[in-house]
Amino acid sequence: MSNALKVTAPEGLPYIDTEREFDAPVEAVFNAHRDPALVAQWMGPDGYGMEVPEWDFTSGGRWSMVNIDGDQRYEFRGTFHTVRENEFAIQTFEFLGFPDVVSIESIRFEDLGNGRSRLVGHAVYPTLEARDGMVSSGMEKGMSEGYDKLEKLVASA
Amino acid sequence: MSNALKVTAPEGLPYIDTEREFDAPVEAVFNAHRDPALVAQWMGPDGYGMEVPEWDFTSGGRWSMVNIDGDQRYEFRGTFHTVRENEFAIQTFEFLGFPDVVSIESIRFEDLGNGRSRLVGHAVYPTLEARDGMVSSGMEKGMSEGYDKLEKLVASA
Repeated sequence: MSNALKVTAPEGLPYIDTEREFDAPVEAVFNAHRDPALVAQWMGPDGYGMEVPEWDFTSGGRWSMVNIDGDQRYEFRGTFHTVRENEFAIQTFEFLGFPDVVSIESIRFEDLGNGRSRLVGHAVYPTLEARDGMVSSGMEKGMSEGYDKLEKLVASA
Repeated sequence: MSNALKVTAPEGLPYIDTEREFDAPVEAVFNAHRDPALVAQWMGPDGYGMEVPEWDFTSGGRWSMVNIDGDQRYEFRGTFHTVRENEFAIQTFEFLGFPDVVSIESIRFEDLGNGRSRLVGHAVYPTLEARDGMVSSGMEKGMSEGYDKLEKLVASA
């Protein structure tokens, strides 16, 4: 799997760094982040329903989404501080199960040429405990499954 | 100065923690953060002009401000992720002189009783270098002067 997700949680610093390549042009990967109808098809782990009540992928916009597992609803929300087309985004991120624990995450959309691209993420948490909690919550599995769906989605487009 | 600003920049962690008490009720201190006409009167260091083009102090709102020093304009912008009246706010913060270096900051508005209150801030930076740069930029002086103006403003209200 040359396109596997790499996740790094550096010792003693409240960060999660991620990297994932795609056999898809950067424009397609960016569009799958901008369009809420596409976001609903790939973001989050396998086997969950997904609702995207709000998704304004522009600088200053806001977003919310719900992962649904039977009767359980897992709600998330945040703001988009910066969005630059096919290039860069910065957003806040809150899981309402841990209210007021809000991270800030940047994503670089890199054009690798030959119809390939790379996403480079840097998430920063308000405490080391919050970062460690996110790592142990299964975020790596959920994110990896989500990116696999994203790759299939843009390949089929 | 029992109400002096305390600033802590912990070794090896990308945080700036702040604490400042006020001889003013928490409602007045909160209102001075919510109303852009008041924000323009106190935020930022002494001797600068101030413009507040955008200030929507609500959950999901956005803000921008400009410090003016003669011909120089220092622009800042961000979003408010959470705002709870007289209690709590979380915002993003970017100085456009260092584009894409965005911190996330929480402020707790604490009621100390007897018409006194305390602000407790926790700012988190995307790198240690960004945090250190903010500390050495004179932010402590600027913030301290701003809070002194805030105290006079709410005392005179």
